Amino acid sequence: MVAEILSVGTELLLGQIVNSDAQYLSRRLSELGINVYHHTTVGDNPARVREALRQALGRSDLVITTGGLGPTEDDLTKEMVAQELGLDMRLHQPSMRALEGYFERFGRVMTENNKKQAYFPVGAHVLPNRKGTAPGCVVEKDGKMVAVLPGPPRELTDMYDTQLEPFLRARTHKRIASRFLRIFGIGESEVETRLKDLFSGSNPTLALYCATGEVTARITVMCEENEDPTPLLNPLEKEIRARLGDCVYGEGLKESLAHVVLNKLLERKATVALAESCTGGLIASRLVDCPGASDALIEGHVTYSNQAKMRVLGVTGKTLREFGAVSAQCAAEMAAGARGISGADYALSVTGIAGPGGGTEEKPVGLVYIGLASNQGVETWRFLFTGDRGRIRELSCLNALDKLRRALI
Amino acid sequence: MVAEILSVGTELLLGQIVNSDAQYLSRRLSELGINVYHHTTVGDNPARVREALRQALGRSDLVITTGGLGPTEDDLTKEMVAQELGLDMRLHQPSMRALEGYFERFGRVMTENNKKQAYFPVGAHVLPNRKGTAPGCVVEKDGKMVAVLPGPPRELTDMYDTQLEPFLRARTHKRIASRFLRIFGIGESEVETRLKDLFSGSNPTLALYCATGEVTARITVMCEENEDPTPLLNPLEKEIRARLGDCVYGEGLKESLAHVVLNKLLERKATVALAESCTGGLIASRLVDCPGASDALIEGHVTYSNQAKMRVLGVTGKTLREFGAVSAQCAAEMAAGARGISGADYALSVTGIAGPGGGTEEKPVGLVYIGLASNQGVETWRFLFTGDRGRIRELSCLNALDKLRRALI
Repeated sequence: MVAEILSVGTELLLGQIVNSDAQYLSRRLSELGINVYHHTTVGDNPARVREALRQALGRSDLVITTGGLGPTEDDLTKEMVAQELGLDMRLHQPSMRALEGYFERFGRVMTENNKKQAYFPVGAHVLPNRKGTAPGCVVEKDGKMVAVLPGPPRELTDMYDTQLEPFLRARTHKRIASRFLRIFGIGESEVETRLKDLFSGSNPTLALYCATGEVTARITVMCEENEDPTPLLNPLEKEIRARLGDCVYGEGLKESLAHVVLNKLLERKATVALAESCTGGLIASRLVDCPGASDALIEGHVTYSNQAKMRVLGVTGKTLREFGAVSAQCAAEMAAGARGISGADYALSVTGIAGPGGGTEEKPVGLVYIGLASNQGVETWRFLFTGDRGRIRELSCLNALDKLRRALI
Repeated sequence: MVAEILSVGTELLLGQIVNSDAQYLSRRLSELGINVYHHTTVGDNPARVREALRQALGRSDLVITTGGLGPTEDDLTKEMVAQELGLDMRLHQPSMRALEGYFERFGRVMTENNKKQAYFPVGAHVLPNRKGTAPGCVVEKDGKMVAVLPGPPRELTDMYDTQLEPFLRARTHKRIASRFLRIFGIGESEVETRLKDLFSGSNPTLALYCATGEVTARITVMCEENEDPTPLLNPLEKEIRARLGDCVYGEGLKESLAHVVLNKLLERKATVALAESCTGGLIASRLVDCPGASDALIEGHVTYSNQAKMRVLGVTGKTLREFGAVSAQCAAEMAAGARGISGADYALSVTGIAGPGGGTEEKPVGLVYIGLASNQGVETWRFLFTGDRGRIRELSCLNALDKLRRALI
């Protein structure tokens, strides 16, 4: 099956946003063994959308459009698909009811132009939107298939994953199975060196991806629809785990370091408190991202000022005077203080200089201390991170979580 | 002048990388007043590259290709441009010397296929590559212009900025200026309804973009290279502000709601404390994202459990028993408590049910109370948000910041 991605949106042609939808769909389609030969982007212009559709339908079996499903007059993807396929537009009652319900729940007034989001080409299979107001659809005619998806990435990825992908999978009879190993505490080139001889296989294949501070190893096999991929995946996974040890912290793309830490806390019925300075609530926020966080996270404190460190956490004036707020001593007192007041089993603290200002020769931007208090006492670690404010805060957050993870192993 | 970006690279069609080159070039071309009507991406396939080139030359004055300039046999963009324009390839001696110098400096052996990077279509204006080995070029024929650029973003951006942009600027004598107004507290379709008659202008033009909970209005004018765009931009901006009132919270693409709130606090030398339950540190983290947050944010507390709400913030057991943790009463006591212990001028509180679990008929997932304590007393607001846990937390965070913003106006 040959597919093509047709992105509709003037904001793409003006370079205001990057076309992450095309990348996402391409990656997911390639996992199904579907070949993508073209990406095309046009603006919110009826003639150019239709011309691009006509061309795409002429050379591809499957055309996936992204964008142009909003309530405004500019949004015309569905209408152009209907015109190009010679189909009328018809009201889809369940979508209208869903729209009305959405506006009611939100306490907002539904305007006349919102209603166009409930109209679809006759015969379309409607794909409800769980993340926004614009449903998508799949239309089939003369052996061609057009899938119409919304542009906002969180709506698009959810609709693809939960609705379009199963629909397409039922047609290809092949499947690709991937397993992802999440790695922290070791750099990409070191991972590559340790796994060097494992990259040459063809089924399974091994690839590495890296993001801020962490590396993901992907093991992929192609097999028949009804074949169990496990016997192909297991030996390579076992070998990688043997070589990387406890640097492998999790599996899957959705399981973040915070999820893994939270699950370990919940398994052990242990609790945690947080004392954050330069991360400023980032660690708390990551834990609270995970459903169930309330059973493990007793409380968090963002103590950005010295006053708050003393008053809330009991850091001593002596420590702040003699060693400063960015010191191992302060990190230790923050962690011990947070554990003491909350009664939590563990307390994590972070204090550092995220920049861009505030650095000195002795204490440069990027200097971060992490503290961990438990019934074993208090440990601290010193880090010197590079990068901008966002990256320094992110690396501080991840390393703090990783210290807690290792304490929980 | 109408331009088109033709990206060549199988890695784009496999979704291994996002097409940031197309975004970069589009943004830069729009600044020159050059209209980009199409992006096209094809793989490293001679027939499809040529077909895409032929089509692009048929409908655009300027075609910018990216990628396919490497030393391997797969890399064939220059060759296809030459074939399509009916030009021979010829050795460019300065490029060959530069290549030889590059390999010598890095102590590497230059292979036979590296030499193809020094061949160009006859008559091409060669663009040296200061960041890699593959030079680009500009070829003109029959009133059409083809610019051939390398794919790696750091090579592409440098070559565009230092060589192609000056080349193009000398031809257009036009510029585009845009202004962005950031809007919160009003939905996209309501914004559109209020501004309906303003969308029909041609210079300036008006467009809307939306993200979670907020809308951005873009005003764009095209003017002569040396003309001041301000007199064209100001009247429309003034009209929009008159119609949307204080829902316009900021200007520019980089100024987030948190930035605006922080700046207002700093201007007034006012301080804030936070008491977060379901947002779990998200508000603190957004404020700490902004350099200078330490002067306004006294402290934050993530009080996820009832125990922490009572112990840290002084919420009463009576309130929790009678009204529950997700109630206007609890939000009020959280805000008052956070203000009391910190001595801050303002304290914001959030308590709600982010889901997926924890909802009841009376208190469904998405129910959120926001409290704001100041020297004027305590106010609370009730919200019912839709969406998943992440979206509910995001909307809670933005609405809390917006309540503080409005209090600071």
